[in-house]
Amino acid sequence: MRVAYNEQMTELADMLGEMAGLAGAAMERATQSLLQADLSLAEQVISDHDQITELSVACEERAFALLALQAPVAGDLRSVVSGIQIVSDIDRMGALALHVAKIARRRHPNHVLPEEVNGYFAEMGRIAVALGAGAREVLETRDPERAAKLREEDDAMDDLHRHLFSVLMDREWKHGVAAAVDVTLLGRFYERFADHAVEVARRVIFLVTGKMPVDPDETTSLES
Amino acid sequence: MRVAYNEQMTELADMLGEMAGLAGAAMERATQSLLQADLSLAEQVISDHDQITELSVACEERAFALLALQAPVAGDLRSVVSGIQIVSDIDRMGALALHVAKIARRRHPNHVLPEEVNGYFAEMGRIAVALGAGAREVLETRDPERAAKLREEDDAMDDLHRHLFSVLMDREWKHGVAAAVDVTLLGRFYERFADHAVEVARRVIFLVTGKMPVDPDETTSLES
Repeated sequence: MRVAYNEQMTELADMLGEMAGLAGAAMERATQSLLQADLSLAEQVISDHDQITELSVACEERAFALLALQAPVAGDLRSVVSGIQIVSDIDRMGALALHVAKIARRRHPNHVLPEEVNGYFAEMGRIAVALGAGAREVLETRDPERAAKLREEDDAMDDLHRHLFSVLMDREWKHGVAAAVDVTLLGRFYERFADHAVEVARRVIFLVTGKMPVDPDETTSLES
Repeated sequence: MRVAYNEQMTELADMLGEMAGLAGAAMERATQSLLQADLSLAEQVISDHDQITELSVACEERAFALLALQAPVAGDLRSVVSGIQIVSDIDRMGALALHVAKIARRRHPNHVLPEEVNGYFAEMGRIAVALGAGAREVLETRDPERAAKLREEDDAMDDLHRHLFSVLMDREWKHGVAAAVDVTLLGRFYERFADHAVEVARRVIFLVTGKMPVDPDETTSLES
């Protein structure tokens, strides 16, 4: 049983890692579609989204089968339960990348972003992709030090997000309300993508160390 | 074992129902704090939020103990796994009510909302509270017909959210970018609150009927 459990748990972790990789790739393309008003990239993110949904269902089924057939206990049981929770986080990361791509598609052939904020989104996109890759690595290695580093990258995201809002709130904003609404939503999507990546890392830290780090969304997000 | 399982599962469902009730109460107070610029209501939501977090941890522990001690199979196992997923949804509902209250507090003594959109938020708040109560009822009764009705209430929320955006995007909007940013975020928080309530109902329908209804976030949300 133990050997079968280990094999199946490794498979589940690999599938979760693959899912995080797809979510990161989707956010990378969605960001490019946004920055370059590239319709075909946006459409690719939208049509590829099914892969993430399918993998999400497959991960849930795999975790369920593991519980049903192996009846794991103690730390093993905790790993599978965390796996089920992690699926939801990565699923949301994919949905947030999809939302970005849909805004890019809706405004095409226009650019969504006033040039003034392009740099913010290029950098938020870079951090989001790094966080997706980081989440994948943490899932595959279960390295708590790497997991803790994701928090630092998320802090950089929160800083950018705050700066972006001060640009929006500035009396010098000359791009109108419609652009401000798009920028507000997009900023929120990148920030939430990062939060979910950090949440994946928190759950892995909890698995390895038995201690749950403080929820970043309760302390550092814009709404605090 | 079976009797113990049933008792503990009923307790878990009641705790989840209680959590949904707290999230609904938080959204009700948060909406009043928003509409009336009532600082003490906003602060109450913020200080009461710990109760939701504590109940969330208690629900996860209860579900975990159920898996560990009862080793449920088949439909019973699925119920517990769904319970774990439902905790996350209700937890987010509480966090979204908290976000609304924090915006009301941040702008106090000013009103956040231009009078023109007060009616939208009064109605979105009413629907959100009804959805919270509906989610609680569905958790406690497992009635799939009641669960399906939550979808209809969510459609009303989506319609309001879309209208709100057309008000924002209108050239007649005279309240500036800062108010538009707040209204955009607040609209998103109410819409997501409703999505999570519907997600709770979807999971209950799945438990009872074995079929998962289509994800509303993929079909009807603003980003579609």
